[in-house]
Amino acid sequence: MPISFELLAEDGPARLGKITTTHGVIETPAFMPVGTAGTVKGLTPEMVREAGAQVILGNTYHLALRPGDELVRDMGGLHKFMNWPGPILTDSGGFQVFSLTGQRKVTDAGAAFRSHIDGRPLELTPEKAVEIQQNLGSDIAMVLDECPPGEATLPVLKEAVRRSILWAKRCQDHHSHPYQVQFAIVQGAQNLELRGECAEALVALDFPGYALGGFSVGEAPEAMHAALPACAALLPREKPRYLMGVGRPEDLLIAVGAGLDMFDCVMPTRSGRNALAFTSTGTIRLRNAKHRRDSAPVESDCPCYCCVNYSRAYLHHLFAAKEMLGPTLLSLHNLAFYLRLMRDARTAIAEGRYAAFATSRLAALRGET
Amino acid sequence: MPISFELLAEDGPARLGKITTTHGVIETPAFMPVGTAGTVKGLTPEMVREAGAQVILGNTYHLALRPGDELVRDMGGLHKFMNWPGPILTDSGGFQVFSLTGQRKVTDAGAAFRSHIDGRPLELTPEKAVEIQQNLGSDIAMVLDECPPGEATLPVLKEAVRRSILWAKRCQDHHSHPYQVQFAIVQGAQNLELRGECAEALVALDFPGYALGGFSVGEAPEAMHAALPACAALLPREKPRYLMGVGRPEDLLIAVGAGLDMFDCVMPTRSGRNALAFTSTGTIRLRNAKHRRDSAPVESDCPCYCCVNYSRAYLHHLFAAKEMLGPTLLSLHNLAFYLRLMRDARTAIAEGRYAAFATSRLAALRGET
Repeated sequence: MPISFELLAEDGPARLGKITTTHGVIETPAFMPVGTAGTVKGLTPEMVREAGAQVILGNTYHLALRPGDELVRDMGGLHKFMNWPGPILTDSGGFQVFSLTGQRKVTDAGAAFRSHIDGRPLELTPEKAVEIQQNLGSDIAMVLDECPPGEATLPVLKEAVRRSILWAKRCQDHHSHPYQVQFAIVQGAQNLELRGECAEALVALDFPGYALGGFSVGEAPEAMHAALPACAALLPREKPRYLMGVGRPEDLLIAVGAGLDMFDCVMPTRSGRNALAFTSTGTIRLRNAKHRRDSAPVESDCPCYCCVNYSRAYLHHLFAAKEMLGPTLLSLHNLAFYLRLMRDARTAIAEGRYAAFATSRLAALRGET
Repeated sequence: MPISFELLAEDGPARLGKITTTHGVIETPAFMPVGTAGTVKGLTPEMVREAGAQVILGNTYHLALRPGDELVRDMGGLHKFMNWPGPILTDSGGFQVFSLTGQRKVTDAGAAFRSHIDGRPLELTPEKAVEIQQNLGSDIAMVLDECPPGEATLPVLKEAVRRSILWAKRCQDHHSHPYQVQFAIVQGAQNLELRGECAEALVALDFPGYALGGFSVGEAPEAMHAALPACAALLPREKPRYLMGVGRPEDLLIAVGAGLDMFDCVMPTRSGRNALAFTSTGTIRLRNAKHRRDSAPVESDCPCYCCVNYSRAYLHHLFAAKEMLGPTLLSLHNLAFYLRLMRDARTAIAEGRYAAFATSRLAALRGET
């Protein structure tokens, strides 16, 4: 098996682990910066690495449409194309396709949709999702699943679970790659019974890793928090557990406490581009006039490049002047913040004090320091 | 004197020199990347340094309007504010004000104009230009001058020369700064007689450096090339000579050959943001479809970060997808190209073969290799 997972410590449901891939090690709990179109927006790979990232996520949908997965393959694969030598996880493209409301038609065969770039008709089948990701050459590929919206009815949910199981099997059958492995995705929304059925069927297929999909799709954060411990417990103990598309720092702290190992979210970079900074005591809007003359860094005890070298006043100025360096610096800080939070979580788990750590960090995030 | 200039070698009119400032050394001929609003657009200072820059230029007009020179002073000066520890040259703001056609009124007292940001009425006098630059804390400040357009009539040119001399004296009288020095600016367009009068008056004031203004303001490049040797010869041999706002790689090669030492231009960064790459054999448009599958770097023998790590195909993709990293990487390459050209020029002068070097480089730029 070209990937291995070592469970190094458990602290309640929280887990400390280590995933070894062909392109390097991922210490878990791990946050994966999102590099949608073959670049973590606004940052060089060196900046992403320096912020503490060990693995990044690439979006199959976006890369297949532009520049095209065969082009990426011909250029030596995604690692080489984007100059990221470390581990890469790719999603299956399903989430993006299912977000194209009104523009797609789903059957058991796959999803027919239109490109958001030029409107040309396209099809994503389980087999196609496998082939695209094999062309990209990611270390971890995701099976194609059907991710229904947060407000989906029970029949819709059941159908999505049925189809997700069907497609996972077809992805597995179609897969053939020297170092890439596939993770399966458990759907079922807030319905624990459906989640259980889905997990049972997928676990029987013995994938090297499992994900929870269908969270952070419009439901209240508290509903997700409540569902996570039971959902995490449905997944094999000895394999990595990935919570897809989540989330805020609060969500990550709670999800780690529920026994999840991997996370991805556009929030740190997207917020960074919009002048919203994450800190351990909550968010800061750097466009706010009160930062105009503030010589303090974004976060005083943050060792990131942005905080060591620049003031809030400078960042306020960069955003006011619409200078590219503002989004770059703040995306960097926000990633460093997320990655440091995960590193601190790993330390806390190793030292058997995760519950106290998470409680204290959550209170600080709420401004209760 | 807080600045010194050593003339290390002469090779025909071409000069090899070394300017020592409080914030470091500038080897000449030198190209100064433009950091208009307190940032070289899209790049960290480390990237600018790594590309080979020893000095950058800041724009007084832009910085005075936003974030304000007093704010920059209160934040510890421009070096600290923007995290550039090396030498900084600031222009006087005059060029920008005179570019605001129809929105400004000029008398001997100064220029009244309206902010391009919020329309508020402002005034730039010689004294104000000095104070702003002292607040910014640049190493080299420029006197306020009047820069007439390329097509100006003789009476307009004469008036501009008269006023530029008047203002240079007032800037000198008003100046008081522990490490900053002022360079004077010779105007007179293509009129060598006027240039001579202006230079004579300014040289009598014994500034530590001299600039040629009023080039690259709409005249044909050949007209500038023809005027440069005589204009350079009007400036003191033992002081740095700065050709303001110039230019293309071709212009720099010719200007160095005419005896100029310092240059600035937005072209490498602005072109970089627009997918236009400079190479030793001419420019390349990376949006062109022929680069879609091109695995070669922008320039094969270029040791810059962009060329070492990325293909033309990747840059083509980044620009197609409107990803920030495209402008960043190509600005970096273009700066590296300019700065390498100046480094090669310095070597050629030191080895007494500048004329042959320039001839061969100019031929290559024209595609005549």
